[in-house]
Amino acid sequence: MENEEVNKVSELIADKKSDELKELLGELHPADIAELCNELDAEEARFIYLLLDNEKAADVLIEMDEDARKEFLDILPSETIAKRFVDYMDSDDAVDIIREMDEDKQEEILSHIEDIEQAGDIVDLLKYDEDTAGGLMGTEMVIVNENWSMPECLREMRLQAEDMDEIYYVYVVDDDERLRGVFPLKKMVTSPSVSKVKHVMKKDPISVRVDTPIEEVVQAIEKYNLVAVPVVDSIGRLVGRITVDDVMDEVREQAERDYQLASGLSTDVESDDSVLRQTSARLPWLLIGMFGGIANSMILGNFDTTFAAHPEMALYIPLIGGTGGNVGTQSSALVVQGLANNSLDSDNTWKQILKESVVALINASIISMLVYVYNFVRFGPTATVCYSVSISLFAVVMFASIFGTLVPMTLEKLKVDPAIATGPFISITNDIIGMLIYMGITVMLS
Amino acid sequence: MENEEVNKVSELIADKKSDELKELLGELHPADIAELCNELDAEEARFIYLLLDNEKAADVLIEMDEDARKEFLDILPSETIAKRFVDYMDSDDAVDIIREMDEDKQEEILSHIEDIEQAGDIVDLLKYDEDTAGGLMGTEMVIVNENWSMPECLREMRLQAEDMDEIYYVYVVDDDERLRGVFPLKKMVTSPSVSKVKHVMKKDPISVRVDTPIEEVVQAIEKYNLVAVPVVDSIGRLVGRITVDDVMDEVREQAERDYQLASGLSTDVESDDSVLRQTSARLPWLLIGMFGGIANSMILGNFDTTFAAHPEMALYIPLIGGTGGNVGTQSSALVVQGLANNSLDSDNTWKQILKESVVALINASIISMLVYVYNFVRFGPTATVCYSVSISLFAVVMFASIFGTLVPMTLEKLKVDPAIATGPFISITNDIIGMLIYMGITVMLS
Repeated sequence: MENEEVNKVSELIADKKSDELKELLGELHPADIAELCNELDAEEARFIYLLLDNEKAADVLIEMDEDARKEFLDILPSETIAKRFVDYMDSDDAVDIIREMDEDKQEEILSHIEDIEQAGDIVDLLKYDEDTAGGLMGTEMVIVNENWSMPECLREMRLQAEDMDEIYYVYVVDDDERLRGVFPLKKMVTSPSVSKVKHVMKKDPISVRVDTPIEEVVQAIEKYNLVAVPVVDSIGRLVGRITVDDVMDEVREQAERDYQLASGLSTDVESDDSVLRQTSARLPWLLIGMFGGIANSMILGNFDTTFAAHPEMALYIPLIGGTGGNVGTQSSALVVQGLANNSLDSDNTWKQILKESVVALINASIISMLVYVYNFVRFGPTATVCYSVSISLFAVVMFASIFGTLVPMTLEKLKVDPAIATGPFISITNDIIGMLIYMGITVMLS
Repeated sequence: MENEEVNKVSELIADKKSDELKELLGELHPADIAELCNELDAEEARFIYLLLDNEKAADVLIEMDEDARKEFLDILPSETIAKRFVDYMDSDDAVDIIREMDEDKQEEILSHIEDIEQAGDIVDLLKYDEDTAGGLMGTEMVIVNENWSMPECLREMRLQAEDMDEIYYVYVVDDDERLRGVFPLKKMVTSPSVSKVKHVMKKDPISVRVDTPIEEVVQAIEKYNLVAVPVVDSIGRLVGRITVDDVMDEVREQAERDYQLASGLSTDVESDDSVLRQTSARLPWLLIGMFGGIANSMILGNFDTTFAAHPEMALYIPLIGGTGGNVGTQSSALVVQGLANNSLDSDNTWKQILKESVVALINASIISMLVYVYNFVRFGPTATVCYSVSISLFAVVMFASIFGTLVPMTLEKLKVDPAIATGPFISITNDIIGMLIYMGITVMLS
C-alpha cells in the first residue's frame, strides 16, 4: 500500500467522509483493506470497519497483521467480536483469531456465537495442537454419501455449499462417516447424471490424520499438487480439510525460519518489529558469539610465546577462523536444506559424510595450495608460517566440512530441529576449533 | 521412498516380472512413481515407463527430478517424447520439459506433436521469458462469454473440460476475448439456471500480465489467497492461467535461494548433487573468503610494532571479526527477508537505518560493557586493551549494523538481487573493516 493512499484515507476518516470512504472501500479487495488497516492506527481502523458489511469485515480481519489485529480487537467487547466477525468466518480462521486471545476472552466470545454448530466446531478445533493437521484444518466442506446418485449429490451440495466461498473437492464418506473417496467439483458438472457417487469418486484419496505434524501436511500438499487435503481421525472418519492457502503461509514461514536461524536471529522477528523485539531476537546470538570470542582469546593467550617468536602468525588468525566458518556454514546449510525438502535422509549420514569429505578434500587442497604459494612469495621458502598456515587451513576445512555435516544430521536423528546447528553456532565452534588446530600445528612445527 | 522399496522394484525389473510391477505401480500416485524413478537408473526407469498408460507416464515425467529426467529422455527419439509424453501434458508442463532441451531437439519434438492446437500453444508459450507470468502459465482453462446463459455455459464447459484434470474457476470474456470476470466453479452448480453469466461473475477479477515478473505473481496469489490467477496480454485479452502448485514451488525456491546465498552457496545446488557440482557451487565463495583473509593479513602486517608492544591485542582478533560478521549477517538477513515478503520498502531506507541504529546502539553498549568488565578483571584497570577492545567492538557493531542494512537496500533500489549482499560478502567486508577499526583505535590509544 502506497503511503499516499494511506494518507488520503486518514484524511477522509478525519473529515468523517463516510460516503467517499465507502465507495473507495467497495473497490478494494479485503486483503488490500487489511494492508490499509495495518498502517492506520487502531481508532482509524475501527472507523473503517463500521463501513464494511459483516462478510467483508471478517475477511479483512483475517488478513490483518497479528499485531495490528490484536490492537484493533483489544477494546472491542466479546459480543461484538463474536457477532460481527467470528460468526462470518470459516472455522479455521476463527480458531486462528480466538487462539490469539487469553482464555477468559476466548470463553466469552464462544458464548456469544449465534450459530451453535460453528461454536461447537470451534471448541473442537481449539483442542488440537497448533502444530498438527487438526490445528490447521477447517470444517467447511461438501460431504456426500458413497451410495447416493449424482442428482442427490447435487441437491445436497446446493444446501451445504450456500455459505461456503469456494469449493474444490467433494468428499465421499460411508455410513459410518469414514472417508472413502474424493472427486473434483468438475465431475459434478461433467459426469452423466445416472452415475452413482461411488463410481465417479477416486478411491483411497490422499489424506492426513488430525495428529499429522504440519511439516508432513505441507509435504503431502506440495508433492501431490493438491488444492486441499482431507483430515481424518484415528479410525478414518472425515473431520476436516486443509486448504492450500494456509499451507503456503507455512511453506514460507518454514523456509524463512531456517534462514533466520542461519543468520543468527531468533525465529519470528521481522524488519518492521519494534526495537525491543528486534534486540531480544538478536542479542542472545551476539552474546553467544561474544563468549566464543572471549574463549578464543583465552586459548590464544596460552600461546603468547609462539606469537612472540613468530609475530607473523597473528596475521593469519582471521583467515583461518573465517575459512572454517565459511566452510561449516556451507556444509550445514546444504544438510539442513536437504533434510527440509526431503532430498536427504538422516539414515544416510555416513554416505553424506563420505561425499562431503571428497568435496572438502578438493576445496582444502586448492585453498591451502594457493595460500602456500602466496606465503612462499611473501616470506620465502624457509619460513615456518608457509607450512603451518597451509597445513592448518587444510585441517580446518576438512574438520569444518565433516562437523558441519555430522551435527545437523545427528540432531535430525535425535528429532531436534537441525537448523539450530547452522549460523552462529557452527561458525563460533569452527572458529574456536580452528584456533586450536592452528596453534597446535604451529607449536608442533616450531 | 524407502530404500527397501526401491531395491524390491529393482529386483522385479531384473526378473522382468511385469505383472507384479504393473500391480504395484497401479497403486502408486504419479509423484511416488517419479520418486522411485529418480532413484532407479535410466534403463530401469524406462522399463517402468513401458508399463504405464500414457496419461500416467506423462504425469510421472513432470514430477521427476530435472537431472534424472534429462538422463531418462536423453536416448529417447523425439517422436516418442512427443507422442508418448508431450501430447498428454498440460501446456505449461510441456513447455517446462521442452525448455530443458537444446533447440534442435525442441523443433523435432514440436514437429511430432499430433494435436496441432497443443503444438501451437507450446510454440507461443516458449516465446515468453521464463521469469515472467507468460513463462509460467498454461492455456488449459474454461472460458465462457459474458452474454451466455448458465445452461449454455454448462454445455460449453462440458466440451472444454473433458481433457482437463481439475478446474477451479471459470473465466469470462467479452466478444473481443478480453477478460471481464471470473466465477468459482461452485457457482455453476449453485446458481439458478436462468441467470446470465454476467450476473453471476465477479467483475474486474485479479489478474496478472504476461510480462509480470514471477515474484509479483507469487505475491498476488499469496496475498489474495487464490488457487489460480488469469494472465492477460497488453490489451487485456485472456491468454492463460497460472495455478497455485506452480507458484508454491516458486515460493520454496525463492526462500531457498536467499538462504543459499546467505550460506555462501551458489544457487541451484542440493546435497544430492555430484561432487563436482557441489565443489563448483562452493569453491568460489571460499576463494573470495580466502582473498579476504589474505587482505586482512596484509592489513594486520602493517601493525606488527603494535603487536610487539601489546601482544595481548592479537588475542581479540577473532572476537572483533566474529562480532562484526554476526551483526552484519543479522542486519542484512532482516532486510533481505523484509524486502522478499514485502514488509519492507526500499523507499524507506533512512527510516530503517535509523531504527537499525537504535537496535545497534543497545547491542553495542551491552556487548562492549561486558567485554570491558571481563578485560578489567583479566588485565587490570590500566591496560590499554580494556579500552581499545571495547571501543572497537562498539564501533564495529555500529558500522556492521548500518552497513548490513544500507547495502541490501541500495542493491534493491538498483534492481540487483539484495540477497547477494548477505553471507560471505557481508562477513568478509565486516571482517576487514573491523580489523581496520580495531587497529586504528589501538594505534590512537597507544
